Amino acid sequence: MKKIGVLTSGGDSPGMNAAIRAIVRKGISMNIEVYGIYHGYTGLIEGTIRQLDLGSVGDIIHRGGTILRTSRSDAFKTEEGRQAALAQLRKFGIEGLVVIGGDGSSRGAQKLFELGISTVTIPGTIDNDIPGTEMTLGFDTAVNTVIEAIDKIRDTAASHDRISVIEVMGRHSGNIAVWAGLAGGAESIVIPEVDFNIEEITDKLEETNKRGKKHSTIIVAEGVCSGAKVVEMIKERTGLDTRVTVLGHMQRGGSPSATDRLLGSRWGAKAVELLASGEPVGKMLGLRANRLVANGFDLLHSEKPAVNLELYELSNSISI
Amino acid sequence: MKKIGVLTSGGDSPGMNAAIRAIVRKGISMNIEVYGIYHGYTGLIEGTIRQLDLGSVGDIIHRGGTILRTSRSDAFKTEEGRQAALAQLRKFGIEGLVVIGGDGSSRGAQKLFELGISTVTIPGTIDNDIPGTEMTLGFDTAVNTVIEAIDKIRDTAASHDRISVIEVMGRHSGNIAVWAGLAGGAESIVIPEVDFNIEEITDKLEETNKRGKKHSTIIVAEGVCSGAKVVEMIKERTGLDTRVTVLGHMQRGGSPSATDRLLGSRWGAKAVELLASGEPVGKMLGLRANRLVANGFDLLHSEKPAVNLELYELSNSISI
Amino acid sequence: MKKIGVLTSGGDSPGMNAAIRAIVRKGISMNIEVYGIYHGYTGLIEGTIRQLDLGSVGDIIHRGGTILRTSRSDAFKTEEGRQAALAQLRKFGIEGLVVIGGDGSSRGAQKLFELGISTVTIPGTIDNDIPGTEMTLGFDTAVNTVIEAIDKIRDTAASHDRISVIEVMGRHSGNIAVWAGLAGGAESIVIPEVDFNIEEITDKLEETNKRGKKHSTIIVAEGVCSGAKVVEMIKERTGLDTRVTVLGHMQRGGSPSATDRLLGSRWGAKAVELLASGEPVGKMLGLRANRLVANGFDLLHSEKPAVNLELYELSNSISI
Amino acid sequence: MKKIGVLTSGGDSPGMNAAIRAIVRKGISMNIEVYGIYHGYTGLIEGTIRQLDLGSVGDIIHRGGTILRTSRSDAFKTEEGRQAALAQLRKFGIEGLVVIGGDGSSRGAQKLFELGISTVTIPGTIDNDIPGTEMTLGFDTAVNTVIEAIDKIRDTAASHDRISVIEVMGRHSGNIAVWAGLAGGAESIVIPEVDFNIEEITDKLEETNKRGKKHSTIIVAEGVCSGAKVVEMIKERTGLDTRVTVLGHMQRGGSPSATDRLLGSRWGAKAVELLASGEPVGKMLGLRANRLVANGFDLLHSEKPAVNLELYELSNSISI
Repeated sequence: MKKIGVLTSGGDSPGMNAAIRAIVRKGISMNIEVYGIYHGYTGLIEGTIRQLDLGSVGDIIHRGGTILRTSRSDAFKTEEGRQAALAQLRKFGIEGLVVIGGDGSSRGAQKLFELGISTVTIPGTIDNDIPGTEMTLGFDTAVNTVIEAIDKIRDTAASHDRISVIEVMGRHSGNIAVWAGLAGGAESIVIPEVDFNIEEITDKLEETNKRGKKHSTIIVAEGVCSGAKVVEMIKERTGLDTRVTVLGHMQRGGSPSATDRLLGSRWGAKAVELLASGEPVGKMLGLRANRLVANGFDLLHSEKPAVNLELYELSNSISI
Repeated sequence: MKKIGVLTSGGDSPGMNAAIRAIVRKGISMNIEVYGIYHGYTGLIEGTIRQLDLGSVGDIIHRGGTILRTSRSDAFKTEEGRQAALAQLRKFGIEGLVVIGGDGSSRGAQKLFELGISTVTIPGTIDNDIPGTEMTLGFDTAVNTVIEAIDKIRDTAASHDRISVIEVMGRHSGNIAVWAGLAGGAESIVIPEVDFNIEEITDKLEETNKRGKKHSTIIVAEGVCSGAKVVEMIKERTGLDTRVTVLGHMQRGGSPSATDRLLGSRWGAKAVELLASGEPVGKMLGLRANRLVANGFDLLHSEKPAVNLELYELSNSISI
Repeated sequence: MKKIGVLTSGGDSPGMNAAIRAIVRKGISMNIEVYGIYHGYTGLIEGTIRQLDLGSVGDIIHRGGTILRTSRSDAFKTEEGRQAALAQLRKFGIEGLVVIGGDGSSRGAQKLFELGISTVTIPGTIDNDIPGTEMTLGFDTAVNTVIEAIDKIRDTAASHDRISVIEVMGRHSGNIAVWAGLAGGAESIVIPEVDFNIEEITDKLEETNKRGKKHSTIIVAEGVCSGAKVVEMIKERTGLDTRVTVLGHMQRGGSPSATDRLLGSRWGAKAVELLASGEPVGKMLGLRANRLVANGFDLLHSEKPAVNLELYELSNSISI
Repeated sequence: MKKIGVLTSGGDSPGMNAAIRAIVRKGISMNIEVYGIYHGYTGLIEGTIRQLDLGSVGDIIHRGGTILRTSRSDAFKTEEGRQAALAQLRKFGIEGLVVIGGDGSSRGAQKLFELGISTVTIPGTIDNDIPGTEMTLGFDTAVNTVIEAIDKIRDTAASHDRISVIEVMGRHSGNIAVWAGLAGGAESIVIPEVDFNIEEITDKLEETNKRGKKHSTIIVAEGVCSGAKVVEMIKERTGLDTRVTVLGHMQRGGSPSATDRLLGSRWGAKAVELLASGEPVGKMLGLRANRLVANGFDLLHSEKPAVNLELYELSNSISI
């Protein structure tokens, strides 16, 4: 293996730059040339590809986002698009590819592998919902971003005896809501995996209110309902002063946490090692018991990992 | 002066605890008893009043919110309410009062002064819109909170070539929007003080887009329009991928910045010094050229300080 | 089990308050009274013990340090001290105990268990060096604190073409140095587990210097050598402009990260569940593959977990 | 004026990048070419000069350090060095210069002005000790960095009943120590401007200790004494458990605060406006009552602004 490529695809996540940096440096240390493919699969099809050197990845380990930019590509979902991508890889002499992204990106990677390109994926998404790994790249930073917001909102909510509803990311997964809700000491957590029962929430609010605790925090995963809607429902049922915050894309950004920088660095170096052998390889990297694992692409079609309902139950049992 | 009281009123702001701490400690150092009045004017009417000692204000200088809680009181706007407040002050033997809050709170303070209670106000509001002072308590922290959010959002917006609209506080004032917009490097700022022209914004977006800069940040003060509405307008006119973040009450919370801790401490101590003389005093504290000033309540009825349009113009001239 | 006690002992670590909160709330939800024992084993001997209610643990999940205070007790190492402790537990009717602390604290817990007190320990130490767990409470926060410092120092070091030596905690363990060094992008890491070779470091400095990269960061675990000493050695051998930062006890403090709040909450609730059965129990809680485990005290006398040398090697291989 | 240059010199400070960005963008908006001079006066002498465009200053407003690098130049102190610098300016056709730095850098700027080069300085130093301005660029960020460290250290000090000594920057000035000490709630502050009296400090420690407050924070400006030395003195006199932290160059780095980004932007744009006229200009920019001012270089030879002793006294009076 003389030349490998790396691209980031789908939603960006903190730690992607740490992974890119490790891929480039590990590659160079093994005498492999590393090419950056810009704007995800779009750039692969269009040939927006440049060689990366040590300087290209200097001073980026602590930066959010991805220096390679990212996109969602419809063209790559077509046979024609994939053939164009393949042609670009051949033109640049790139024999192996690292794809950093979520499950859509991994499905794309599998297609390339089936077309004969050695491909390794790094699970880069803040949603923590990739099969075969305990943790995805960016999830830890996103959860920390949410709890910092909760901490700030609690300051003012406590001063005003006010109910705060915070809408967090999670279209199909309650992971961010559950982890941040438990770590942030939220009173209630609303997630797609559990039936939404507004009365349970308002009963609890009225009960804690009677007990003298006048402020409460409710975390809502966007996939269930908008935060604004939950505010309306609470006001209607209880008359309590209730406000919404929508954290939005803030949750994707920010300097990556130590965990995400380490995961990115470890997975990045591992991906290069797997490709370096020169044998055909098609693997999805993951983490199990703090060790790196390499799963086959078949796992992609198994069920998504379920949200940790123990954490959800724990939050319920101690947020009294 | 043997006994003074302190209350926080209206919206809370970071630095209120630093002020309370300074009032208590300065009072004790001058052999004055300091009483905490809880929940603003509501607590003053109801007599929710407790003496504060050194321990009451330990370990709070760095905390957001207000340990005295706050509220907006309709009762205090009535003659009856104010007479009840007066009766409570007499009952507790409180001869002087420090009121920390915005202009509504100061108007209340003026009423008390007119009823014969020595009263000093500290301009506590994140809106930076109090006559007679260059800076209000909490404004610096709020602006820093907004720019941290902008920094995070830019990471992901830059990775995705996306337009970000960020809705910030400011019902009648563009102060937070202008300061944070300039400090955050926003491309456009929408404030109540300047006519809202969506075409100017979209023209600029299309121009910078042509030049190759694909991501832009637009700050909108809530008083003009919701961020969501601005997103709609931009999408309609340009078709660009545009997202909203609503920072909401996060902007009120958080550990106060150095500036706000210092202002709170300085104003708190000054308020006690003014009251300590025993002479009747009715003053609004402020800051001019980094020195503390004490203005009369008449200033309250002058015009609100205008937003600094030079900063707005500067932002326009360099956000090309 | 009607009454349990909780104490924190040894060096404090971020997340201890989250654990105390979970213990109190889980206990109350199971109709168990929870008693706080202040100042660690010292308070146990002296009977500085108070019942904790929901209010005692309000608004603490995000606070560093420990509301129960902590200490290192020589008295508890004597038979007499332990008998006095036992007498206090009987006096208060406390039948089970949760001890949050490092390995010294766990050894104390084992002694109590041998005296017939059901005892469960939570691995609370920033050193990440407790047998039977992949992660200790506070380690994640400490590593994040160090990388934030590295990020700041790199800004100025890069502007000045300067070498920065950062001394971090770790008397017997290179864990913080290795994790933070890799996550912070340090050029060299000095730890107790690997022979210290100053020439390797200075050779590398001179080589990268020749290549045009003029600033470098070197992380030194305090157990090997003082940072100041390393600065001297580098200056002597290379003449390069080199400065030291000693992070000191900053590394113990700060608001706990999401990981530490979650671990504290999970371990705290688990400890109560284990004690609640009423059966004699003597266990050390830990984490394996993101699941809670309960080990016997015998594990305490096995070898300390080794630092992850794979991370050390990875750092070396990519910090070129 | 067709071409101007900008350099950063001396110790770097947060906000320098915001100033560089504003200079480039304001220049371009006025059809002036802006040249970046790298490594301060050293680069001016050596001709390390490159034109800056909009892209050169993209995504830097929030970054610490200076993209132009900096240095202290001995060569520029010689007539020969300055003539070489002049020759470079002529070679590049640069008619006006912006110098961002402390008072040494301003003295250099004055020399250039005397040689006929229009020169405007921006007071960039974390020391806040430049004549003619209430605030220097970077000071606000540095103070905030120190108070964040104090907050973390207090967590653990309070848990351990421990005395913390924190050594901060300030060789000749107590500014950082006083502002951060007051904002951080320190019990004692040691600065060059006030005679150092260890007994006053230890008396106070023993008194507060007797009152039950077992932890205290002492801020020491490096210019008086090393923090380690103060620890020794306290231990010797009181026997109290006392620890040191040396913040070092961390204080120079980090993302600039809102205040520093605004000051940098405002001064940067103003400098370009002053130079644009084409008239000979030699000015030092400053801030007075929140307005920009332009002073003559003669002010450089007046006395340094004194530390604000009112803040020092205030800290003493409320840190009881």
